[in-house]
Amino acid sequence: MVNVNQNYLKLGAGYLFPEIGKRVKAFQQANPDVKVYRLGVGNTTEALTPTIIAGLHSGVDKLADVKTYSGYGDEQGNTDLKEALQKKYAKLGVSLSLDEIFVSDGAKCDSGNIQELFSDKSVIAVQDPAYPVYVDTNVMGGRTGAFDVKTKMYDGIVYMPCNAKNGFFPKIPNQKVDLIYICSPNNPTGAVATRKQLEEFVLFARVNNSVIIFDSAYAAYIKDKNLPKSIYEIEGADDCAIEISSFSKDFGFTGVRLGWSVVPKKVMGYSEDSAPVSLNSLWNRRYTTKFNGASNVVQAGGLAGLTKEGRKESRQLVNYYMKNGQLIREGLSDLGFNKIYGGENAPYLWVKTPNKMKSWDFFDKMLKEAHVVVTPGVGFGPSGEGFVRFSPYGHREDIKAAMKSIKTNLKL
Amino acid sequence: MVNVNQNYLKLGAGYLFPEIGKRVKAFQQANPDVKVYRLGVGNTTEALTPTIIAGLHSGVDKLADVKTYSGYGDEQGNTDLKEALQKKYAKLGVSLSLDEIFVSDGAKCDSGNIQELFSDKSVIAVQDPAYPVYVDTNVMGGRTGAFDVKTKMYDGIVYMPCNAKNGFFPKIPNQKVDLIYICSPNNPTGAVATRKQLEEFVLFARVNNSVIIFDSAYAAYIKDKNLPKSIYEIEGADDCAIEISSFSKDFGFTGVRLGWSVVPKKVMGYSEDSAPVSLNSLWNRRYTTKFNGASNVVQAGGLAGLTKEGRKESRQLVNYYMKNGQLIREGLSDLGFNKIYGGENAPYLWVKTPNKMKSWDFFDKMLKEAHVVVTPGVGFGPSGEGFVRFSPYGHREDIKAAMKSIKTNLKL
Repeated sequence: MVNVNQNYLKLGAGYLFPEIGKRVKAFQQANPDVKVYRLGVGNTTEALTPTIIAGLHSGVDKLADVKTYSGYGDEQGNTDLKEALQKKYAKLGVSLSLDEIFVSDGAKCDSGNIQELFSDKSVIAVQDPAYPVYVDTNVMGGRTGAFDVKTKMYDGIVYMPCNAKNGFFPKIPNQKVDLIYICSPNNPTGAVATRKQLEEFVLFARVNNSVIIFDSAYAAYIKDKNLPKSIYEIEGADDCAIEISSFSKDFGFTGVRLGWSVVPKKVMGYSEDSAPVSLNSLWNRRYTTKFNGASNVVQAGGLAGLTKEGRKESRQLVNYYMKNGQLIREGLSDLGFNKIYGGENAPYLWVKTPNKMKSWDFFDKMLKEAHVVVTPGVGFGPSGEGFVRFSPYGHREDIKAAMKSIKTNLKL
Repeated sequence: MVNVNQNYLKLGAGYLFPEIGKRVKAFQQANPDVKVYRLGVGNTTEALTPTIIAGLHSGVDKLADVKTYSGYGDEQGNTDLKEALQKKYAKLGVSLSLDEIFVSDGAKCDSGNIQELFSDKSVIAVQDPAYPVYVDTNVMGGRTGAFDVKTKMYDGIVYMPCNAKNGFFPKIPNQKVDLIYICSPNNPTGAVATRKQLEEFVLFARVNNSVIIFDSAYAAYIKDKNLPKSIYEIEGADDCAIEISSFSKDFGFTGVRLGWSVVPKKVMGYSEDSAPVSLNSLWNRRYTTKFNGASNVVQAGGLAGLTKEGRKESRQLVNYYMKNGQLIREGLSDLGFNKIYGGENAPYLWVKTPNKMKSWDFFDKMLKEAHVVVTPGVGFGPSGEGFVRFSPYGHREDIKAAMKSIKTNLKL
């Protein structure tokens, strides 16, 4: 009799976004004539830019000609794309070798797969709230106990509360932990870690031989030149940190699928008898065994995106969504919402619900009254209770219409 | 101190194909003027066909227009592509619902990821020889003991020998096992399971509540109408079998990346207290948590491939490679090789080395004397010792030149 991975059965309610989808679908079926505005999932809506489109077409054309056709490439990605990423880091003063860069089909996959390299006894620490993939994949990997429906926490995980008091960035843990997930600019809170804050975590990780998993998928949204865009801008991070990033939000690749990770060769894990083991070599082993590279067509598009023209277009795309965020902020302010966080150097707005409403109650109220989908903060962790996340990803006219609908229809 | 996944450290020598790459690279560096012919890795070489190219371009064009742009799609794949796959199965007399089909970025990834659904105490059975991913990913998942360098076997795995005596398809195991990997048409041996052989395995799986992981990536190469192309052509398989397949070898998508899996809703695993658990729902949970769908551009290409015109072109592509295989077979026969298997309803040729040479010795001899890369059979498992795999994936003129070089230069 084949037994299942018992850890899967520990998973709490459905994954956040499918649950939102279910509720929205039910509402739409009951109200087929109502236009629903989606400020929930962070799904890009604007067309790919001309340079990217040209890059993708040229990637396709290469495959049409036997002289330029390519089959399996290196699992870790094409050299030209890795070189372009290397240059991107060099501009931040970060020096990486090509075999420290791994091209992937997206940051969600990397975020989910990276935990595999570590012992199932590892203690993980997550920001609370956090992108659900960090927690859920560690549950599936057996690094937690059961889910407590009361506290909305998994036993064995160290939750690092992020709240208005600490500017939505946590203090270092007051116990030893093995793996620390940090997302900056943060999804969902929109907070960005300062250099000093990251320095404290890097110091903590080095002292404790812990590893930081740093998710920089939203780095392109940082406007403040003093805020680090990569963990490797912090001295010593190349000893203790893995970085995961993406083409999704700055190039509109949410459906095209392209990301990358950096695993410096100096970052070590330890065997049971405390011998250092290169995480770069383990990750490489995972890559060659379980992955066959990101699509060659898609890599051609990503390469075009990293050219001067491609980057310029990307900045315009980022600015477009940031302007949307500004409109949401202004609209909510006008309505008397006075605790609106994020949206300065990050796409997301993290908004305190009015009248101490619970996240899902406010979600339902917004959907039913204003026909606007937001993301319930508690879906990102217990400290998200009483918040919702507004996403600026949408057409300008829809964002304006959504804000108008909130203004007109929401009963505050 | 962060401990690594100790199971990774059990992995034997490097993954087969990187090891081949290393030896070929060393040879080329020492002999820069020598042309090396690659009949090793099963890497497609011919251009994508016109219908596919048009499909990919149209997928790109959709993203250039804000009206047709799409971001995140369903993790499980686009409905139109799943419907086309559903029809493909219907032609085999197999009825599937859309939510039993999961579109992926390739069969290697699915083959590697599927084991996650099962307990780390599951006993797995593999054909010996077999595609290395089945074994290696289970090693990484903790379902084996140590690697024995003498027997070239991992402790705890049930190896089912495939040899000339049993026509390279194994008997059912003589012990209870939980997971059974079957690849038909087989990589590397080129053997294809008959209906009767599969019926025996399905019966075995149903009696023992085991699950069959059926890899049908090479199904398009089956010419004999009596041979099953899908495990679901066998009655009762929808109770006990998961199927994994690919666009790589029949559409040339090795670098483009597209595949799919089928997990029927009737296939159950069991919790620790023997309650049935739907593997379809576990796989769906993995999909939504760790994957974000295959690229939308690539899915558009795959959809074009499944049209009438696309399938016609695919058959021509398959015939091209099969003709290559025939040339290899004839060339080897002329040289006195008399134990050549496969290549009839499968791309690969499985060839006994001359003079009882070991696989890697013959690999080295072929590389040094004839400048031809083959795949050492022992890299696929201990029963592969004394064999090499010839791959027909290559340009016709290169296949001819390789055979000429073998004829002229190989010292037999």
